[in-house]
Order: sequence, then structure tokens, then C-alpha cells
Amino acid sequence: MEKKHLSDIEIAQAAEIRHINTIAAKLNLNEDHLEHYGKYKAKLPLSLLNEEKIKESNLILVSAMTPTPAGEGKTTTSIGLTEGMNKIGKKTVAVLREPSLGPVFGIKGGAAGGGYSQVIPMEDINLHFTGDFSAIEKANNLLSALIDNNIQSKTNNLNIDPRTIVWKRVMDMNDRSLRQITIGLGGTANGVPREDGFNITPASEVMAILCMAESFTDLKERLGNIFIGYTFDKQPVFAKDLKAENAMAILLKDAIKPNMVQTLEGNPAIIHGGPFANIAQGTNTVIATKMGLSLADYVVTEAGFGADLGAEKFLNIKCVSAGLKPKAVVIVATIRALRHHGGAKSEEYNTPSVERVEKGFANLSKHIENIQKFGISPVVAINAFPSDTQEEIQLIQEKCQDYKVKAVVANGWAEGGAGMTNLAEAVVDAANADDNEFKPLYDWKKPIQEKIETIAKEIYGADSVDFSKKATLQMKRMEKLGFDQMPICMAKTQKSLSDNESLHGRPEGFEVSVREFEFAAGAGFIIPILGQMMRMPGLPAVPASEGMSIDDDGVISGLS
Amino acid sequence: MEKKHLSDIEIAQAAEIRHINTIAAKLNLNEDHLEHYGKYKAKLPLSLLNEEKIKESNLILVSAMTPTPAGEGKTTTSIGLTEGMNKIGKKTVAVLREPSLGPVFGIKGGAAGGGYSQVIPMEDINLHFTGDFSAIEKANNLLSALIDNNIQSKTNNLNIDPRTIVWKRVMDMNDRSLRQITIGLGGTANGVPREDGFNITPASEVMAILCMAESFTDLKERLGNIFIGYTFDKQPVFAKDLKAENAMAILLKDAIKPNMVQTLEGNPAIIHGGPFANIAQGTNTVIATKMGLSLADYVVTEAGFGADLGAEKFLNIKCVSAGLKPKAVVIVATIRALRHHGGAKSEEYNTPSVERVEKGFANLSKHIENIQKFGISPVVAINAFPSDTQEEIQLIQEKCQDYKVKAVVANGWAEGGAGMTNLAEAVVDAANADDNEFKPLYDWKKPIQEKIETIAKEIYGADSVDFSKKATLQMKRMEKLGFDQMPICMAKTQKSLSDNESLHGRPEGFEVSVREFEFAAGAGFIIPILGQMMRMPGLPAVPASEGMSIDDDGVISGLS
Repeated sequence: MEKKHLSDIEIAQAAEIRHINTIAAKLNLNEDHLEHYGKYKAKLPLSLLNEEKIKESNLILVSAMTPTPAGEGKTTTSIGLTEGMNKIGKKTVAVLREPSLGPVFGIKGGAAGGGYSQVIPMEDINLHFTGDFSAIEKANNLLSALIDNNIQSKTNNLNIDPRTIVWKRVMDMNDRSLRQITIGLGGTANGVPREDGFNITPASEVMAILCMAESFTDLKERLGNIFIGYTFDKQPVFAKDLKAENAMAILLKDAIKPNMVQTLEGNPAIIHGGPFANIAQGTNTVIATKMGLSLADYVVTEAGFGADLGAEKFLNIKCVSAGLKPKAVVIVATIRALRHHGGAKSEEYNTPSVERVEKGFANLSKHIENIQKFGISPVVAINAFPSDTQEEIQLIQEKCQDYKVKAVVANGWAEGGAGMTNLAEAVVDAANADDNEFKPLYDWKKPIQEKIETIAKEIYGADSVDFSKKATLQMKRMEKLGFDQMPICMAKTQKSLSDNESLHGRPEGFEVSVREFEFAAGAGFIIPILGQMMRMPGLPAVPASEGMSIDDDGVISGLS
Repeated sequence: MEKKHLSDIEIAQAAEIRHINTIAAKLNLNEDHLEHYGKYKAKLPLSLLNEEKIKESNLILVSAMTPTPAGEGKTTTSIGLTEGMNKIGKKTVAVLREPSLGPVFGIKGGAAGGGYSQVIPMEDINLHFTGDFSAIEKANNLLSALIDNNIQSKTNNLNIDPRTIVWKRVMDMNDRSLRQITIGLGGTANGVPREDGFNITPASEVMAILCMAESFTDLKERLGNIFIGYTFDKQPVFAKDLKAENAMAILLKDAIKPNMVQTLEGNPAIIHGGPFANIAQGTNTVIATKMGLSLADYVVTEAGFGADLGAEKFLNIKCVSAGLKPKAVVIVATIRALRHHGGAKSEEYNTPSVERVEKGFANLSKHIENIQKFGISPVVAINAFPSDTQEEIQLIQEKCQDYKVKAVVANGWAEGGAGMTNLAEAVVDAANADDNEFKPLYDWKKPIQEKIETIAKEIYGADSVDFSKKATLQMKRMEKLGFDQMPICMAKTQKSLSDNESLHGRPEGFEVSVREFEFAAGAGFIIPILGQMMRMPGLPAVPASEGMSIDDDGVISGLS
């Protein structure tokens, strides 16, 4: 098909884009309900939340098998599924994460779906959008400025030990030179020298907090609870000790409101919040999810990386925190990823091989079993690629049948909603099945060690968990501070079910190692660190920015 | 009057705010012309610019005498004058600078006018507004990331000498700890170590460029011309050498469009761009000024600090660059500032003294003479304060009469437009006077030294100018690079007509010293540095952020 050769931005720019009022009308909203950001974006006021409707509507999570580096198309599948659901007459809204701006100028393409399953206007969504990331960045950095100002200040001084500060500045930019810096140089007027560093904005705890908060009051409380470091007397210092939470919340007064845009086929999509999926929850805001449930009968949402990370955190953290009960889970698989887990090298991903796919199914089967542990029988979406063969697809469908799971070919990338009606039917059936009853995997009240062991053994398939000396000490400290009853937000490689990225398929007989902990007291997570976590990407030797252009009418090209 | 005891934010929040469509209608715009940002803000597309109408409409500049630290109320007077002009039947729009967010959390109040002469919604205007500052910050910092990435990179390397880089990162935050930092620490993966620092965002040359640009093409060209530093072979390096200008312009695709809001009395105001008034031009964008002239019969605009800085730069740089011919200039004076220049200490500012006011008039008279050198006879606005006496006011009015200049009491702060109709009548008369014919003070083509001497002698009243060895060397280098035909953007204290901030009134017999130069090759300025310039403010011991709060409905208090 000729149209397949168009780039994402060409498809997006060629699409007929409707005024956002037209999209809102599909959810029975009129223009007075909206806060417009131009003609094609709008913020939704929190007054539209409807607790009754939230309980009645159906929440569908799109997750994935353990991905190859390119990703398996969760966002594309989520958007395509939304098109398909609307095509079969189900009032459905996609609720997705906002992409980070920094990586757009590096290597990666945008994060607004792909092919004929995209949300538009894609340039805006991939750039400043409605300013949420910028507001989060400012709130984060205001706290940093207040910390350094307090260290400098003679009155009002909290006696913070600069060597213990864990709160970093953030910038939504791929900028490796800011990873490790010294600040406060140049004499007494310029602050107190100390080591610091910048993370990229989606790695900010303020982002994680915004995505957990259910109201302004909740937001302020969580912001106040951010842990900063210790005093010279070894007392913990929180953002509320700097009276920072109100000013930070003021900076977030608009960022807290979900953003509405449209899919290529003119269906509504809500895009709001984008926390890191390794050190944070990797899913959109609770408020956006509830907004979608308030306005539509079905919400299709997604969570970062494979189901061992994204779905596990979504179900154990977000759903429990917000009282959400998902009705169905879609696991996105690709024949390419199955070949990968069956032993194919990256240059062999497009080479058909029934043997490799059969072997690679071990990975998918573990994710299926995992989702079933939450009381939900998943649907598998085979995100179609040109190199897929009928034999490979049929094999996966048969093997899924052994788990009483439907595996449906998803053609959203090439065909939009028309290629997704089969999946939509399967998802609606799953959501309405009587035997689906969501239950979390662990009780937040259990000891930290027990919660981590549960995830490692039940989800990853580990035999045991090793805690370093440092980790053991930190667990004791968290218990002493009374923060042990928070859920676990695992920081683990997404490339393997284990914590060793070179173990593909379904690893067995391994031990997981907790090196140390981080602690997001505001967001409400305990974060066991299982490996090196990247928080500030760099630019490649030839940055994508070099190939971008904008003409006199403001039309952009080279943004992918 | 009871109402005077309300704070600015209380007055602003109590005001009846109209939908921006209603405001736009006053300029014959319908809602399709607007890009809404919520109900009360909108961006105006560049297609509304009308070159014919720009030539016909009247441009009014509001400047000031040499100010006291509190400022003499240029913005308040500009807004009040706009109300007054509309009250007497003149279709007038205020065109103002956007305030910087950082200082809001420090000491200073907002920058949206005061009392009953404000633009609203003031919380939004003083916070993120429509995201322009954030976009400028990103464009600035993308260039920084590209520079450090290039230094790190083996392919594509431009051989930049890191010790020569003058391009700094920016953040819209009062954060003294970022003034002087070292970046690129932590080993080979984290960049190349070098000294760096952050300025506050309005000090970015990207801001200066946005405010000079007349179109997308012009914007890109100016961005490409940003001077970064030198190679190890001592060759100059520009942003275009990093192919940065398109990506930077993409980040500014919405920021280039002017923002419309409303005054308290429901008149239109355009707020767009806010460059520093010491190291840059200190006035709103050329595009905003031209937009105002395209849509209304009168534009009231302002420029930072006293007329020796703001008006001089406005007239010699902005008007010449953009081909604008201002029809009238208002010089804002206060009896307080006249007392100050007559010898009053700050605790005596509110103590009436005809003697001090008479002595202080020397300062105002110099500004009057200066404006007359541009071919325009100014109008003096006496921004009223409760401590003013009738004798003091009358004295000033008589003394102005000697210059054939009207001095009109301006009551905009207390009374809004009703207190500004006299000034409005005087301004309309001045704009329509036959003998006003704007001419710039110098020819851009003259040698750098001559241009600086012209400003120092004609405007400041200096006897001579001393150039340091470094400055002389730098002038030669600029001539060699062919950048000597740019206008001069003086960086001088605003507290005195001279470069010595302790000399009040009308200093005479002094020498001005040019220590060194900066060079804004993109904006198109040569910047002689006459003193220490602050580019990154700090927070006070008790930051304003501590007194702010936001309730569950998102209503803010404590923002001033």
C-alpha cells in the first residue's frame, strides 16, 4: 500500500483535524466545559469528575511482553484500539502519557502513536503541548532554589547538611553535561558549593506526585512530603519544612487538569502526565484516568515497558491507590519480539522462524500467567508487521488458547480503527466476562522485604532476593521513619523479566539483587534499585535537531 | 477610599473578567482569529499583521525619569492611559512586556500593573502565562546541550574551545547557586568538564531575538547568528554552525505569536516578550507592537527603566530596526522620585518638600531634553501618590511649561481610566501635533566608538567616554568580524543618568567607562558593559513563596 511509505508526521499533517469542540461533543461536553489551548487542544476542569460514573465505566490496560529496544507498540495499539472500540459502537476514550520534549531532539521518534494510529496535533503533543512538563520542571526547581537559599541564609536556617541532599534539579532536555555538576561557586554571594545534578523532567518526583494526586489538597500534601535530605543532626528534611508546597502547587494549578486531543479518526484522547517508567510508575495521571471513566464507557490506557514493570505497578500502585478496578488487560506482542526471545539477533528480527517464535512464547506465557494472578484473563494483541507469517501467527494463537486467552492480530498501524475491530470485540468480551475480578498481588501493609520478594518471585520468576548491606540499612531507616507501608515501585531493566538484561525469554533459577533504595515520600513509593537507572539521556553525535526545519508559515518537517 | 486598601491580587480577583472573545470583538476580531489559552487569554496569529494600518496608527511610548528602587509606575501608567484613551473614545490597546516568573517567588510583586490599573488574569500573567518564557528557555538550553554535545562528540566535532564559550544556560528562577557552576563532571560518559552558569530566562539572547524578529524567516536567521565562542583556532562559532536554528525556531513556533488579555476595564492588552532592560532592549516584541498598530488606532507601550535606557534603546534600536515612528512619548515622574533626586533619603520620600522637588526637577528636565532630541515633545505624567502636595505638583507643571511640555496628574492606580482622561487628552494632542517628527539619535553605520560617545554625551550628559584596553581590543575584533554596524545596547545602571549609581539628579562633568563588550550577534546589538550587571537574582531570607497559598478550588492568595 502506497500510504505506508508516509512518515508519521506526514500522515498526521495530512489528517483532517477537527475543532476540539467537535471532539468534546462526542463526550457530551460543550465548549464552556473546556479550557482551550488553540483550536485542537483543551484542558478539562476537575469539576467534570463523576465518582458514580467512574465506578460504572470500564478500564482497559494495554501492557506488553518484554520488549525489544524499539518497543512493541503499546501506544499505537492503545490508540488503534480506541478507534476500533468506537467503530463497534463503544464510547471509548484513550488515556495516555504525555511525551517528554528532550528526547525529540535526540534519537527517538515522538510518542504520539504511529502510522494510522496517532493522536494529533502530533507536533504540539511532542513539543510544549499545554505546558504541563514546564510547570512540573518549575515546581521541582523552585524547591531546589529554596533548598540552596536556605543553606545560604542566616535567618530561617534549617541546618540542612548539603552532602545529604537527594533532591535534584530537572530539565526536559537530553543534556548529559548536566548529570553531575558543582553549584554555588564564585564566593559568598553565590550560594554554598555542593555537588548536584540535573535529571530529565519526567524523572522528577513532582511528575510522579502529579500523577498520583486526586485533588489539590492531595497534591499539596504529597508535595509537602517530598524528602530532601538530612540536617547535620541527622533529622529528615521535607519540602514542607521549607513551606514550599503551596508555591509548588500554585505552579501546578493548570498542569493538574487533563488535556484532551483527538485521534486521527476524530475520537477523543486524554493525554496527561508522563512519569519515568523505571524509577516511577510510568503511567498517566490518576485524574486523567478518572476523567476518562467519567466521560466515556471505556477507557483504554497504557503503562510503560513490559507487564512485569508497567502492568505490575499500574495494578499494585495506581489501581490500589485510586480505588480503580481494571476490567481487562491487553498484552501487546509482536512476532519480532517473539523471535527475539526465541534467540533471534536484531538483524534477524524480520526473518520468519516458527521455531524461534515457539521458543519465544515462553516470555509471553509468563506475562499471561502474571496478569491472571491479578484475577484478570488478558487478551493478547499481535501488533502486525509486514514480516509476520501466517504460521507464526497461528502458532501463537493456538498456544494462547492453552491459557484460554484470545490472541488477535492488530492492524492499527497500517489501517487505523478498521484494523482493530476484532481486537475491540475481544476486549469488550473480556471486560464483560463474569470471571474477571481484579485483586492486587500484595497488601501495602506487609513489610518492605516481603513485598519485594512477592513481586520478584511471583512476577519476575526469581528464586530469591538478595539485599545489599546498604539496602538492608535503608529498609530499617524507612521503617523507623514510618514509611514502610508504601507500595513498591521497582527500578529494574525492562529488557528482561529478571534484573539481568541479557536473560531473554523466561529466565528461571535466578536471584534478584536490591543494591539500594530510593524513596519518593511524596509520590508514596519505595523504590528498590536493581540496576543502573538512566535519569538524564544524552544527544547522539548527529542530533535529530539538525534535520528539522520550519517554514515561514510555521509548518514543521523532520520531527518524527 | 476603602477600596485602596485592597491588594493588587484582591482587586484583580474581584474584577469582572470577560471572555477574551468579547475583548477581541472590540478590535473587530472574531473567535476564529484567536488561539485561545483558556477563556481569558489568546494568541494572535501573525496573519493579522497589516502593514498599511501599522503606518497609519499612533505609537505612544511610556518611559520615565530616573527611578527610585521601587520604580515610578510605567506599567501602571501605561495600562491606566489605555483605559483613559478608550474612555475618551480612542480605540487603544496597551502593548506590554511579559513578566518573568522567577522573581514572583522572591521579593518583587507582579508586573501586571497595580491598583485599579492592571491587566488580568494577573495570576496567569505572572506565572506560566502562555508558555512563551518556557519556550525561550528550552530554545536557549537546546543550544547549550548541542554545544556540549559537540564538544563531547568525536564525529561532527567543530573544535570548540570550551574556555571561550560565552553562551550560558537559563532558568526562569531566582537561583543564585546556579550563577557559577562546573558541568560535565563524572567521567567520559558525562561530557567534558567546563565552567558554566545559568542566567534568568529574560536575560537570554533568545528573548532579545524573539523581541526583534519580524517573521519566522527573520527569527531563524537571527537564531543562527548567535555567537557562541571560538574554536581552538580562534575562529568564531555561531549557532548555525551547530545547525541549531531550525530546531530552536520550532520550539518558538507559538511563542512568536502575541498574547491578548484584558485590562480591568475590559480593554484589550497585548503582552508579549520581556527581555532584560539592562543587557538587552527591555521592551516587548516588534511583532506585538505591530500587531497593536494593526488592530487599534493607538498603541500604548513601555520600555524598561528610565528614558536614558528604555526610551533611548526603544527609539534607536527597536524603532529604527522595525521602521516604527512613535508619535508621542510620556515621561512618568513621581513627586517621590523628584524628592529623591532633590536629596531626600528613602525614609523621606513621603515627606513633602517643594525645595527638594525643585532641585530634583533637574533630573526630569534632562529626560525632557533628551526626548526632544528625537524630534518628539514629551508629555509628563505625574503618577499620583497620597503624599503629593498641590504646591509640589504645581511647581512641576510650571517648570515643564518652560519646556512647552504638559505635566498631567495621573490617577490610574486609584481610579483606573477615570483618573487618566486628562493625560489621555494631552497624549492625543501630542500625537496629532504637526511638529513631532521622530528621528533617531545616531546612524547605525557610524563607528562603534562614535555611537557610544553620542549616547553618553547627548543622553547621559557625560563629558567623555573611557574605553578599557579590553574594550578597545574587543571593538577591533567586532570591526574585523564585520559586526560594527549594529546599534548600541547600553548596559548601565538605571539608578543614575551617569554610570555611577550614587549620582542623582542631573550629573555633569563626568566620564563614562566602558569596561568591556558583550555581543548579541543574533539580536543585532553591541552591548557596552558600564558596570556590574545582574543576570541571575537570588531569593531573600524569607522568600515570598512561603506566604503563598492555593485552595482546593485553585484560588491563589499571597501572590503580589
